[in-house]
Amino acid sequence: MNFVKGIRKTGYSEIDDIIRGNCSDEKVSVVGSIYNIRDMSDFAFVIIRKRDGLIQCVYNKETSGFDINDIPEESCVVAEGTISRDERAPNGFELHLTGIKVLSKPVEKMPVAINKRKMGLNLDTNLNLRPITLRNNTERSIFKIQEGIVRGFRDFLHGEGFTEIRSPKIVSSGAEGGANIFTLDYFGRKAFLAQSPQFYKQTMVGVFERVFEIGPVYRAEKHNTSRHLNEYTSMDFEMGFIESFEDIMTMEAAMLRYTFNLLKTEYSKYFIIQGVEIPEIPENIPQVRFADAKRMASEKYNKKIKNPYDLEPEEEVLIGKLFKEEYNSDFVFVTHYPTKKRPFYAMEDPEDPTYTLSFDLLYGGMEITTGGQRIHDYQMQVDKMISKGMHIEEFDSYLMIHKHGMPPHGGLGIGLERIVMKLLGQNNVRQATLFPRDLTRLEP
Amino acid sequence: MNFVKGIRKTGYSEIDDIIRGNCSDEKVSVVGSIYNIRDMSDFAFVIIRKRDGLIQCVYNKETSGFDINDIPEESCVVAEGTISRDERAPNGFELHLTGIKVLSKPVEKMPVAINKRKMGLNLDTNLNLRPITLRNNTERSIFKIQEGIVRGFRDFLHGEGFTEIRSPKIVSSGAEGGANIFTLDYFGRKAFLAQSPQFYKQTMVGVFERVFEIGPVYRAEKHNTSRHLNEYTSMDFEMGFIESFEDIMTMEAAMLRYTFNLLKTEYSKYFIIQGVEIPEIPENIPQVRFADAKRMASEKYNKKIKNPYDLEPEEEVLIGKLFKEEYNSDFVFVTHYPTKKRPFYAMEDPEDPTYTLSFDLLYGGMEITTGGQRIHDYQMQVDKMISKGMHIEEFDSYLMIHKHGMPPHGGLGIGLERIVMKLLGQNNVRQATLFPRDLTRLEP
Repeated sequence: MNFVKGIRKTGYSEIDDIIRGNCSDEKVSVVGSIYNIRDMSDFAFVIIRKRDGLIQCVYNKETSGFDINDIPEESCVVAEGTISRDERAPNGFELHLTGIKVLSKPVEKMPVAINKRKMGLNLDTNLNLRPITLRNNTERSIFKIQEGIVRGFRDFLHGEGFTEIRSPKIVSSGAEGGANIFTLDYFGRKAFLAQSPQFYKQTMVGVFERVFEIGPVYRAEKHNTSRHLNEYTSMDFEMGFIESFEDIMTMEAAMLRYTFNLLKTEYSKYFIIQGVEIPEIPENIPQVRFADAKRMASEKYNKKIKNPYDLEPEEEVLIGKLFKEEYNSDFVFVTHYPTKKRPFYAMEDPEDPTYTLSFDLLYGGMEITTGGQRIHDYQMQVDKMISKGMHIEEFDSYLMIHKHGMPPHGGLGIGLERIVMKLLGQNNVRQATLFPRDLTRLEP
Repeated sequence: MNFVKGIRKTGYSEIDDIIRGNCSDEKVSVVGSIYNIRDMSDFAFVIIRKRDGLIQCVYNKETSGFDINDIPEESCVVAEGTISRDERAPNGFELHLTGIKVLSKPVEKMPVAINKRKMGLNLDTNLNLRPITLRNNTERSIFKIQEGIVRGFRDFLHGEGFTEIRSPKIVSSGAEGGANIFTLDYFGRKAFLAQSPQFYKQTMVGVFERVFEIGPVYRAEKHNTSRHLNEYTSMDFEMGFIESFEDIMTMEAAMLRYTFNLLKTEYSKYFIIQGVEIPEIPENIPQVRFADAKRMASEKYNKKIKNPYDLEPEEEVLIGKLFKEEYNSDFVFVTHYPTKKRPFYAMEDPEDPTYTLSFDLLYGGMEITTGGQRIHDYQMQVDKMISKGMHIEEFDSYLMIHKHGMPPHGGLGIGLERIVMKLLGQNNVRQATLFPRDLTRLEP
């Protein structure tokens, strides 16, 4: 009988192993893809792409023991060589090649050059060729940073006593209302793709008090803008026993500080590749009421207010600009959105029920978070639903939680791709998405 | 201007704070839900449910300062009291109530008793009332254990250099073939819900060498069994530069050991609630070829082999039983599944192409993992697709990765709910799912 034991040691070195090794003349084997060959006639620089970075190798016709012309770029190889420390090289070392084993070779040349710092492609070309353009070292670093943000969100909330949950994405009714919902044939019944985990995370507050979920959400929005995706990743949390909706904002501010600190300590090399500085999260993030923010931006930049109930994207930009100029903050919490534009579960402000105990967080002039306190009282929720013309019998399961006792609670949803977009100064959210879905794009 | 600062300290104690505090006569405030009231005429035991456990409180008509009859079960409260250490009490302390503030009250009595150790409900009733039955302390502990498994998978792979990715669930073609795929209207085009992240995780091996994803997958299977869900959580990883498909099995075995160890150190209290011991992952997990496993089970238990190309659920049970009896292992890797029953991307065994370099992991007689080596050579993949009657022009994006160089690679998918089910000795996978989706169940 054969048995499966622990992980087989491969004998291959990773970049971090070599950096830590810190000795010259060491003999190592590394696996990776041939990213770039710069032929200098009697020798060549060969860049190998590995999972955690690039290795600069030196090929020499006389001593390397193979012919570099036999090995096209994007070949997968095991390269052998001797480490030579050199501060000018990436990661502080070069590999002088002494042998190579080819594991696989491409059958065609790349349709575009992916092995430059910037590919210089238009976005459509980049996205059409996504399976290979993601191999570009600058392009892929975006998604390491995305991973870092997810880790920060998760680790911070775990430490604050939140439980991670997984709610269904096939649902029987939309949580956010409106027509922008995908429909689905579910064994002959009509079903929908979840617009948010709203009902489920509130339900789970009744179970675990504090919960979070990171998962896909779906919006069948028919407009193609630079800030919308039809499938995106929502980082949601929901917490019970709050004393005020401001508890949710303070939790988010602390989470952001934790996350940006994690990015600094573990992901800075990817920011260097991106050529971007990691911003400071201010100790104090300004907080302003919706109506005030609207008025302030209108006055300062001399723009007429068109829609008093919502913020136009252009107004978000101006509010962002104003708080950057006057408070040097990339972030601003806008609070007390009009009841008219918030969903039926939003808690109204007892001091003025035309406004809700809710907020958006703007980052660089764009909404990246929507949150607020929810209604926890059964009768209040039922009355509000009826006043909005909703059929409460369609929400039996959801109202079960209010009927049987819910603490005061609230939460938020953060658009992962939007944070990344803003952080990296991108002008289209598709750049921050591995395989975006929009009005016309269903593949790759 | 107002500013959002760090997290507000609530002044409320959590169970761990009180355990750590370790002094008697301490005055504390706790928030939670009234889980159970046992009235003993002049005093009462009041159990408060908090996110991390239950607190036993003692109510005394004379000294508690309120009337317990005013406070129905499932009220949300702030309770004040004095800690009294008592080894017989849960967590080693009781709270002698000296005051209470009611935050909310239920408007109806629970339709079923949720505040017993075992609710004793049939599964359908439990699932219909899911938003409130999950509040049962035994029921909710299942999902803390589920969280622990997800954390173990993720943390282990992160440590092994894997990058976490997020791939779209709305796709233009199915990865696993067959008719069991949900269709969707995507702005007038036909789209599908992903059966697995297969194409995307392979694509990302070309980018990051090692990747993982934890997300929902969809199977439109029309049979209602105790082991199938139509939406479930798949924990997938995929790794490049493997030397053999066995590298994937050793990685899984090491992951399982790490995860079960995490469960022991951080989740044991939930196993105590479940009344279940955390099994040992054997140092050596037996590994047996498909054909041999089939024959061994057939001979030992005297069952005829009906289908030589696949394992019937009953055969999986017998193989599990055999390896439990003869090797004292709850786990067994079954390898070399017939090519006929594996997908088009499965690598065939060069020694006998009627079999693939693939495996399932059986746990307690049920498949919880399917994995294997994939084809990385472009021509081999194209030839195989054509021989299967597939239209390769429909797979342009996918084949781009093979065309432009892929390392030898493979990976696996683990059904999260199935692991939990087996670990806790449940007989229906729906018990391990917060809000299951099956042929008839689309809510809650």
